[in-house]
Amino acid sequence: MIIMKTGATQEQIDNVVREIAKYGFRGDVSHGEYKTIIGLVGDERKAPFEHFAALPGVKEAIPVETPYKLISREYTKLFKGPSEDKQIKVGKVTFGGSKPVYIAGPCAVESHDQLFRIAEGCKNAGAHVLRGGIFKPRSSVHSFQGLGGKDLKKAEEALIWLHDAGKQFEMPVVTEVRGENQVDLIAEYADILQIGARNMYDQDLLTAVGRKKKPVLFKRHFGAGVEEFLSFAEYIAAESNKNIILCERGIIPMGKGKNYTRYTLDLGSVPAIKKETYLPVIVDPSHAMGRSDLIFNMSCASIAAGAVGLMIEVHYDPAEALVDGAQAILPQDLEKVIKACNNIHEIVSPKKNKK
Amino acid sequence: MIIMKTGATQEQIDNVVREIAKYGFRGDVSHGEYKTIIGLVGDERKAPFEHFAALPGVKEAIPVETPYKLISREYTKLFKGPSEDKQIKVGKVTFGGSKPVYIAGPCAVESHDQLFRIAEGCKNAGAHVLRGGIFKPRSSVHSFQGLGGKDLKKAEEALIWLHDAGKQFEMPVVTEVRGENQVDLIAEYADILQIGARNMYDQDLLTAVGRKKKPVLFKRHFGAGVEEFLSFAEYIAAESNKNIILCERGIIPMGKGKNYTRYTLDLGSVPAIKKETYLPVIVDPSHAMGRSDLIFNMSCASIAAGAVGLMIEVHYDPAEALVDGAQAILPQDLEKVIKACNNIHEIVSPKKNKK
Amino acid sequence: MIIMKTGATQEQIDNVVREIAKYGFRGDVSHGEYKTIIGLVGDERKAPFEHFAALPGVKEAIPVETPYKLISREYTKLFKGPSEDKQIKVGKVTFGGSKPVYIAGPCAVESHDQLFRIAEGCKNAGAHVLRGGIFKPRSSVHSFQGLGGKDLKKAEEALIWLHDAGKQFEMPVVTEVRGENQVDLIAEYADILQIGARNMYDQDLLTAVGRKKKPVLFKRHFGAGVEEFLSFAEYIAAESNKNIILCERGIIPMGKGKNYTRYTLDLGSVPAIKKETYLPVIVDPSHAMGRSDLIFNMSCASIAAGAVGLMIEVHYDPAEALVDGAQAILPQDLEKVIKACNNIHEIVSPKKNKK
Amino acid sequence: MIIMKTGATQEQIDNVVREIAKYGFRGDVSHGEYKTIIGLVGDERKAPFEHFAALPGVKEAIPVETPYKLISREYTKLFKGPSEDKQIKVGKVTFGGSKPVYIAGPCAVESHDQLFRIAEGCKNAGAHVLRGGIFKPRSSVHSFQGLGGKDLKKAEEALIWLHDAGKQFEMPVVTEVRGENQVDLIAEYADILQIGARNMYDQDLLTAVGRKKKPVLFKRHFGAGVEEFLSFAEYIAAESNKNIILCERGIIPMGKGKNYTRYTLDLGSVPAIKKETYLPVIVDPSHAMGRSDLIFNMSCASIAAGAVGLMIEVHYDPAEALVDGAQAILPQDLEKVIKACNNIHEIVSPKKNKK
Repeated sequence: MIIMKTGATQEQIDNVVREIAKYGFRGDVSHGEYKTIIGLVGDERKAPFEHFAALPGVKEAIPVETPYKLISREYTKLFKGPSEDKQIKVGKVTFGGSKPVYIAGPCAVESHDQLFRIAEGCKNAGAHVLRGGIFKPRSSVHSFQGLGGKDLKKAEEALIWLHDAGKQFEMPVVTEVRGENQVDLIAEYADILQIGARNMYDQDLLTAVGRKKKPVLFKRHFGAGVEEFLSFAEYIAAESNKNIILCERGIIPMGKGKNYTRYTLDLGSVPAIKKETYLPVIVDPSHAMGRSDLIFNMSCASIAAGAVGLMIEVHYDPAEALVDGAQAILPQDLEKVIKACNNIHEIVSPKKNKK
Repeated sequence: MIIMKTGATQEQIDNVVREIAKYGFRGDVSHGEYKTIIGLVGDERKAPFEHFAALPGVKEAIPVETPYKLISREYTKLFKGPSEDKQIKVGKVTFGGSKPVYIAGPCAVESHDQLFRIAEGCKNAGAHVLRGGIFKPRSSVHSFQGLGGKDLKKAEEALIWLHDAGKQFEMPVVTEVRGENQVDLIAEYADILQIGARNMYDQDLLTAVGRKKKPVLFKRHFGAGVEEFLSFAEYIAAESNKNIILCERGIIPMGKGKNYTRYTLDLGSVPAIKKETYLPVIVDPSHAMGRSDLIFNMSCASIAAGAVGLMIEVHYDPAEALVDGAQAILPQDLEKVIKACNNIHEIVSPKKNKK
Repeated sequence: MIIMKTGATQEQIDNVVREIAKYGFRGDVSHGEYKTIIGLVGDERKAPFEHFAALPGVKEAIPVETPYKLISREYTKLFKGPSEDKQIKVGKVTFGGSKPVYIAGPCAVESHDQLFRIAEGCKNAGAHVLRGGIFKPRSSVHSFQGLGGKDLKKAEEALIWLHDAGKQFEMPVVTEVRGENQVDLIAEYADILQIGARNMYDQDLLTAVGRKKKPVLFKRHFGAGVEEFLSFAEYIAAESNKNIILCERGIIPMGKGKNYTRYTLDLGSVPAIKKETYLPVIVDPSHAMGRSDLIFNMSCASIAAGAVGLMIEVHYDPAEALVDGAQAILPQDLEKVIKACNNIHEIVSPKKNKK
Repeated sequence: MIIMKTGATQEQIDNVVREIAKYGFRGDVSHGEYKTIIGLVGDERKAPFEHFAALPGVKEAIPVETPYKLISREYTKLFKGPSEDKQIKVGKVTFGGSKPVYIAGPCAVESHDQLFRIAEGCKNAGAHVLRGGIFKPRSSVHSFQGLGGKDLKKAEEALIWLHDAGKQFEMPVVTEVRGENQVDLIAEYADILQIGARNMYDQDLLTAVGRKKKPVLFKRHFGAGVEEFLSFAEYIAAESNKNIILCERGIIPMGKGKNYTRYTLDLGSVPAIKKETYLPVIVDPSHAMGRSDLIFNMSCASIAAGAVGLMIEVHYDPAEALVDGAQAILPQDLEKVIKACNNIHEIVSPKKNKK
């Protein structure tokens, strides 16, 4: 990591970036209020820090050997003074702002009518962002794979619906990118690109998505520790895209015998992650629980744990949903969730409310 | 399970208990408002239900093949009409009442002064029950094993301190029973007998503790699924002791690499367990997190998830604690936790507040 | 699944495939000695089986609702009579033949010399297939990402080395495909396409690789149960590519505290998987253990458990390896492993040896 | 840890033990060929090592801060020169000797006839030690709890059968001790005291069993890491009882969906544990797999991994067994297992065979 002197010129900064590139590193430039910092993407053990320290305009050049330095609080502290949470703005919505953000919608987009009907319900209930899966990751090749399935052309139609529903109900939209070949198409229509849990480790996909410079909703794999989760988020950040919304959605359930919830929601990870990174953290209680009767309590618990938003599956007729109906709640129940969660948020974050 | 006719006499009930005993079953008698039910403790597959159904006063005799029938909602529904949560009263404290119950105190009792000083701090912060470990379960034989260690005589002195502190500050006291040979001694001084996570599977200890008829604070093992947890609680219930307070305290952390929390707090289990049983569920965020800086958020999240109480480690000087200092909070921080949690409890349980 | 009559014509078979396509299903045609079977790829719950049963040449049309039917023993039993293990031939090597197959080589290709020197050592030690990673999946974006890294052009040079080394030492070669955009390039040079553990869930990549019709070495994700593992193998089979070599390589380690092995090698899964599917199963003890001093024993244990091959990392100077040196063994140690494993294979599979 | 000078007198040794006791430590005395070592049981951080070093006959006094020092290879190396595996002799049987030891018998003793018939089958098949559960740990209070159940008097009858069967067929016998109150009774009749997986953490039971000075068969808990397993074995060693046979029996299965084996047999732990401790390690494939059709392969794999013995459940009519019938094998199948395992043992431990 290279710390520039206060008042270093753009030319000096560019020169440092060129110089480190000669040694095989990409430079990640961050401008603070008084200082500019250039992070090295690559294995710093081989970097000639003494040489870098002697370049014009450089104040200090020091190695930082953690797998997630670009998104760490340590890093941002260096040039921002007291470390602050990152706010990510998508249209009029702010992740990490004074109120929690509610992402809601169907698990899978099934039809124009289904989508618009649910979108309207979510909007009226108080949701801010519309979700809807078009490329669905599925455990069985024999299950419904989403409207798009593997066909980019059919998928586009559904993407247009999603885009239109977002426009009509004034909600930014988010949908999942499952493979590299879908990135360009989805980036045309979605405001936020989602990386699902199953693709957390897919570093080529993360790189491709990071390059789009759009906000990324990044879900933790159900078998990943927190360190791995943040290390893979760093793949996105390494493309100079720090608009990353982290999402806890449950880990593999422990213990033998019947599972009462589909996954184990690791809420302790929420405040723990917030100590490590300035990125906003949200929770998806729907996939974690896999049953609608626990969503109210676990939504409240997520906000109480420090989450700055929720992602909840909603359907006007859960029994009829083609995918994961058992975990969808009704729009009227979403309203209750939002009301309770807003109240809890005020209790757990008193400082923000005073502003 | 045998359902007696409304108005069945005590003589008829006693007769049924005697009769099923002939076939190797113990009878667990529960009196509802209108009905009495006799649960069979043992393997019902071999029970002559037709014969039992023909006994005087018997309305129905039906097999129930779940590993935790005596504590299940299904069971209590049969004779209570609409199923209700069990309230467990210990002195003036009610687990499952209109307010959450806060158990607080040192991880380990270290001295008379340490205990009384912490007890006073907890009382002033708003705690209801005093905790303090005397027989400590430890991973290493070379670590401090608690004041009592393996010596029942020395332990008694510490038990008397605990008892006296409870009296002085008007708090019932709870302490852990680690082995069968400690049951009698501890039952003399403690108001609630605690079974720690490591002993959850120790069925002989559960039986011995169940027989004392005192309330039992029963912690989930960190490797146990919910079904196992409830199945072992049934060992206590099978001694006709239903005063069981269930406690979630974290399961083995998932994933590779550095752990950011000591255990994974499985808060989804809280509302899930409440669907299965009428017993009250509390949470111990201190052991689960293993670090004091996450206790506020995870306490709030626990109550939001539906817990009816918390168990929190408190020390006036965490750095000096002989056991688990890193997870203890200060008395003044406990006060903040309690205030926030009471407010959250009102949000998530609106019905109770209307009464 | 549609079972054709003995003697059904190709025209009748083609007709059935066309007919089921009208209902949205792909047909997976398998020819047995006497019978032909057409598997339906898709959600059979919506299929008009009565209609299919009435088509010319059809004997029976029955639903099979398992997530991995095309690779299951049940399926192959239907048309093959007594179920047999599948043999996969790659050049002169046969996975599932009378002797175990040994895949060996460096974790990562580092240079022409390194590769050829290791390849020679492996060949002399008795290995049959040469491995060498060019696109390396890594937990940190700041670590060495393989010679190819993200650059397809640089990668091609290394692929040519691998191909040439395979030619020179008469060993088919296998290398990992990490993303969809690498499939075409790698398929030009490699004899077997490897899907690494981290990409097991990447269904778009599986489909792309399946379509190449080359043998696929498919590794289990460290967080996946056996059912998931086989369900995702089905994505490859659904492209009518059954040349799938399954590979157990360790799951996330359990329990708290220091890990003595990098992953937990789930050897019980080997004979369990063989009961479910006719596909060959091999084991990679190198990644599972993460330390070279346990490779001999765990290689022997893998073959004893029923594995038909091993994948082992070899380096002439493990301490100098750029990736995972701690788990690589020397060529002379590979020779000992192979000798012992061949002897053990004779003990555990007496029938094959009698042939 | 205190290393005595060569030729230190018994008086000097006793004096050191008395001296360290003054500071609250127990002394664990080990005599090597040339040297005697006194291990400190307790928290060494508070020990006055300089003072101990100055006592007559003391060569060195050094702190060793690992949770399992008394059973570690490091410890034994200090006074034994080149570290060797411990051999534990029980009658004519030697754990850790030139041949693997086979423990076999019914899961639960059901009747005199059942036990003797199975014992005879096991003996004829080549087994060395007879197993039979009398106090069975069970997940449900409603299941069969073993012949003894909770009744010590009834249990004694079954213990006498076990003892007599061992005599008649010349096999030492092993049975499980589930609670502290059973220790004295079982120690009268059994040659080896078994601590089951569920009781691994029960430190009071471990202490009580350790004091009996009989060999202990110590099973790893299904939720325990290797470090925990060894740390709790240290509780037995701390009672100066090093006759501990460690047993891997499977850990909690990973991943979602159907489990194909009851537990995950962690065979990698076998050679890993052998690097840490000189104690013998055996494997119980029966409980780990929970199905008889995988026992042959997993027995072979266990010996190949370095286990010095196996514990296998045998029944002449598995379908009729009251407990865990699905995992029991027939006596004739045990014979095949033993034959194959003996051959594999020769392959993996060539040095021993040369002696």
